[in-house]
Amino acid sequence: MPGFSRLVRFLAKNGRVYYGDAVLPQGVTDIAKTKQARIITGDIFGKHEVTDKIVDVRLLLAPLVLEDVKTVRCLGLNYALHAKESKLPIPKYPVLFYKPITALSGPTDPIPVHQMAQECPGLDYECELVIVIGKQCSDVPESKALDYVLGYAVGNDVSQREWQIQRGGGQWSLGKGFDGWAPYGPGIVSPELIKDPQKLWISTKLNGETVQESNTADMIFNVKQTISFLSRGTTLLPGDLIFTGTPSGVGMGREPKLWMKDGDVVEVTLEGVGTCTNKVEFAKENPKL
Amino acid sequence: MPGFSRLVRFLAKNGRVYYGDAVLPQGVTDIAKTKQARIITGDIFGKHEVTDKIVDVRLLLAPLVLEDVKTVRCLGLNYALHAKESKLPIPKYPVLFYKPITALSGPTDPIPVHQMAQECPGLDYECELVIVIGKQCSDVPESKALDYVLGYAVGNDVSQREWQIQRGGGQWSLGKGFDGWAPYGPGIVSPELIKDPQKLWISTKLNGETVQESNTADMIFNVKQTISFLSRGTTLLPGDLIFTGTPSGVGMGREPKLWMKDGDVVEVTLEGVGTCTNKVEFAKENPKL
Repeated sequence: MPGFSRLVRFLAKNGRVYYGDAVLPQGVTDIAKTKQARIITGDIFGKHEVTDKIVDVRLLLAPLVLEDVKTVRCLGLNYALHAKESKLPIPKYPVLFYKPITALSGPTDPIPVHQMAQECPGLDYECELVIVIGKQCSDVPESKALDYVLGYAVGNDVSQREWQIQRGGGQWSLGKGFDGWAPYGPGIVSPELIKDPQKLWISTKLNGETVQESNTADMIFNVKQTISFLSRGTTLLPGDLIFTGTPSGVGMGREPKLWMKDGDVVEVTLEGVGTCTNKVEFAKENPKL
Repeated sequence: MPGFSRLVRFLAKNGRVYYGDAVLPQGVTDIAKTKQARIITGDIFGKHEVTDKIVDVRLLLAPLVLEDVKTVRCLGLNYALHAKESKLPIPKYPVLFYKPITALSGPTDPIPVHQMAQECPGLDYECELVIVIGKQCSDVPESKALDYVLGYAVGNDVSQREWQIQRGGGQWSLGKGFDGWAPYGPGIVSPELIKDPQKLWISTKLNGETVQESNTADMIFNVKQTISFLSRGTTLLPGDLIFTGTPSGVGMGREPKLWMKDGDVVEVTLEGVGTCTNKVEFAKENPKL
């Protein structure tokens, strides 16, 4: 069990980067509002200590150092209404794809949109509960699956539908794997605080307007089932992330389609965790290829 | 440019593990036949030195330490005849999927087949040229793509067709991502020795019988195009591997189907690089889930 309640990685006002345990005012649960944190020393995945030293937070960063994340797994079609709006059947088994670790970014980082992803319409948002694996495991029974969870975050599985679907040859990874297309955070909440990950409200706002709103109770494969299934014959490593799929309301499922534009602000929120707020930034110049 | 000719990582007769430059007898090019190697010191991706110290090799290991590989990208349908046998159209863009790093294994490691992958028929082989990225890059023009190559290996993109296709919900990663399902090696050959990666014979033998035989000249997207395309808006990191797709002759493309069985020995060979020889080992017990 981790010693922290709400793990954050942050740039402190003193100019240093630390791991810390967020200090939130009474009644506040959104980690994005963290102004102070207790410094954590040691190994986040092993022996570590939440110290008494409290420092001022300037900026929250992606909760894990990039190199500490080994693999980013993602589920598709894991909410029934989203499968329906995607005009795809309810899957019998979890549908798995991957993002590269270079897609990861922090809770307030801009989402860079490369020229390649501007060539055709289809820039979309997907709010998701993110599982952070804390201990190496394989062939985990559902009954023990939560023992391997370091905590939970919220993430945005940013997607370019044309590259994901038509131009991707049916394989989703390309249109979801650009640099910075997996912002997550704003921190990692301990399973001690979220004993049941299947009753959390999850939502997306685009430019302040709610576009997705659901509850993790509606997942087709819940957190326990997902970890157990993905660990069959496959070793999950500390720091592995699992994006658990998005509910209905994505831009692709609407008529007319709702695609994100340059300068849009997208917020993904998970109850008990908080909000990632990311601005869409279209690259202005074509790289000289 | 790397200082080595044929990079190997190996268990030496003295019981230690080293990086080395394979010492091959005159006329021998298959790295699998390495009996001795010059020890390499330093950082394989940075400053390193091929020393004069020659040691005896007991066992070749996966050429890179697992943690040095950040991302394993794979192309599908990158040989025209293989697309045809898969009954899929020639792709307009490279078709990308991923394997987790835990799928990587060495040139003589067994291929473990979990109960889950035994439940349904479909265990298949795929010989592939593997690109090893040596330097961080993004938006690389084709004309400079080879500058970022550390070297080339041969790999086997082991696949369970039922989980890859039907049960995978159309996403290929699950049925290709089990532990040990990406043996590669037997070493990494410098681009100094392989100046043109598009004229190499590539083949697979199953229990001694040739089942795939082609030439990298037949790739739809060649090595330069692949690196350039995959680096658009996406940072490639030192140690990233790219499996570049398999030619025709896979078990799925045959009538009757040719599936690998417990105890089968599968050999994938790339001209100028060598052979990985891996034995299929069915797990005998169902893990207690």
